[in-house]
Amino acid sequence: MLLNMRDDEELGRITLAQVAQEAGVSISTVSKVLNGRQDVAGQTRVRVERLLEEHAYRRTTRAAREAPLIELVFHELESVWALELIRGVEKVAKAHQASVVLTESGTRQAPGPEWIEGVLQRRPRGVVLVFSALPTEVKQRLRSRSIPFVIIDPAGDPDPDVPSVGSANWNGGLVATRHLIELGHRRIGIITGPGDMLCSLARLDGYRSAMSMAGLPADPDLVRYGDFHVEGGRERAEDLLDLPEPPTAIFAGSDLQALGTLEAARLRGLRVPEDLSVVGYDDVPLAQWSSPALTTVHQPLRQMAEEAVQMLMRLRVREPVTTRLELATSLVVRQSTATPAA
Amino acid sequence: MLLNMRDDEELGRITLAQVAQEAGVSISTVSKVLNGRQDVAGQTRVRVERLLEEHAYRRTTRAAREAPLIELVFHELESVWALELIRGVEKVAKAHQASVVLTESGTRQAPGPEWIEGVLQRRPRGVVLVFSALPTEVKQRLRSRSIPFVIIDPAGDPDPDVPSVGSANWNGGLVATRHLIELGHRRIGIITGPGDMLCSLARLDGYRSAMSMAGLPADPDLVRYGDFHVEGGRERAEDLLDLPEPPTAIFAGSDLQALGTLEAARLRGLRVPEDLSVVGYDDVPLAQWSSPALTTVHQPLRQMAEEAVQMLMRLRVREPVTTRLELATSLVVRQSTATPAA
Repeated sequence: MLLNMRDDEELGRITLAQVAQEAGVSISTVSKVLNGRQDVAGQTRVRVERLLEEHAYRRTTRAAREAPLIELVFHELESVWALELIRGVEKVAKAHQASVVLTESGTRQAPGPEWIEGVLQRRPRGVVLVFSALPTEVKQRLRSRSIPFVIIDPAGDPDPDVPSVGSANWNGGLVATRHLIELGHRRIGIITGPGDMLCSLARLDGYRSAMSMAGLPADPDLVRYGDFHVEGGRERAEDLLDLPEPPTAIFAGSDLQALGTLEAARLRGLRVPEDLSVVGYDDVPLAQWSSPALTTVHQPLRQMAEEAVQMLMRLRVREPVTTRLELATSLVVRQSTATPAA
Repeated sequence: MLLNMRDDEELGRITLAQVAQEAGVSISTVSKVLNGRQDVAGQTRVRVERLLEEHAYRRTTRAAREAPLIELVFHELESVWALELIRGVEKVAKAHQASVVLTESGTRQAPGPEWIEGVLQRRPRGVVLVFSALPTEVKQRLRSRSIPFVIIDPAGDPDPDVPSVGSANWNGGLVATRHLIELGHRRIGIITGPGDMLCSLARLDGYRSAMSMAGLPADPDLVRYGDFHVEGGRERAEDLLDLPEPPTAIFAGSDLQALGTLEAARLRGLRVPEDLSVVGYDDVPLAQWSSPALTTVHQPLRQMAEEAVQMLMRLRVREPVTTRLELATSLVVRQSTATPAA
């Protein structure tokens, strides 16, 4: 599916003057609403926004007062992903002589309502959002101002009508599990992410497909849902290692869960990789700093962020873009995996 | 020493019109230079900047068109510090209804020349710089626009005439070493940072003072200068562990060097903390995710960033601020240190 902003725009033939007349306000009031100015009464603002939406208004004079800014909006900067995404956005923004405005807002699913006014006032070249979904109102308000936006969605559950960048989660689960099978492991545990995130399910399905293709049983005892954090990883790994017939390898589903798995092994006097093989997921910088360095699935976070900004730049000049771009994942073999002890 | 911007301003009694007359240009040209606009010939810009500097011009109308932005400028986002500092700045900026503009620029010592034009155009409320030094020209250009600025300088070597926030490096070296001495260690190695950074020397001096106060010899064989990175830490730790009389504990000088030290121990079959105690420095999040979790010196990076923005806010309203604020460091004891084996 291709999104072409020109199509959108042809719907939006209503002018500012017509909106003003229909709302019974001055053109300058409509203009203030468009620019996110605070000196408009709440009811008036709501009426104008509704008319802009009804008529699918699209600003056409965007370039004139646009600022050389790219907005980057996160749910949480806490995440080990955050810095990689920031660096990717910063790199491409700089190449386009734009600066990056960083905002932390909302929940894992969608940004909070407070950030949008600031964006409308700043008039950025575009907005990159690290969320699965956007409220319809937010989409409408950005569209009516002709501010392009792209979602980076590592969880893999994007709005179909918003351009988004993700990565190949199913394939990541497949290659991690295959690597362990090729080393000779037969009992392989998995700690995937939360059960309500599509990426967790995709990685688990990749694991199951690899097991099935190798003719290995899918033992439900070996499957755990985690929370992508260290402590949760340690707890699930302890569960797996305390089974009557424990696994010889654990696919930990995230690098943080892999670090928790290393700690679970250490607490039981198990050496990694001699007694237990561990595979992470993400390949954030700490994967290579861990001791032993983690074999992990590389998720190209920085390139995902770079692609998102490139998409914005194409949207700005009204080039058609694909609505969903999935970058490849790949296995990076380091020191945490080996042939199982005989 | 107190910096009071009102004092500065009383020097700057020259008006825009006088600068324009002396430079032989229109007032609007001087205004364009002040606002970082690109449509002024290079020579004219230089002449105007020089006059602004000579007369110590200070804009007094700042508030009128100021944007609700805080600028944060880094040498490298690569650093494990970066995210902690970003989060601190973001938190206080948000409390003041301001957004954060992030720029990566320059070298470890000072920002590059290209970012300043963007800052002048955006008219932020203030600028936080993570550098030891600022070129005189940059300071002058920010001052003439009445844009306040503060340096976050974890290296501890700030310009005396710029407000800056750092932390207590000497004391950090002292408490780390004392902890190891109290556990019963006598041969204690240190991997400090690069020899050209004041923070490295301050931490080393803290180590030496702790050794000396405990009546322990300062063996120069046990002192290594590192680069604050994992790989460099591993190499220096291997040097120390390969000594004829190796240390029973290593104060690693940074959390990344501590991770390298864990890997050096693992490669030699040494268990941490049973066979070797390790202390890090910084207490970035990965310190608690390491296996074993690192005993480390907490450097309050997030609070340093928060203080820097608070200082900006006081400078904006022309409250006097101290030029140098040093926050306390403290020891966090986790699992990587223990009594030495008998």
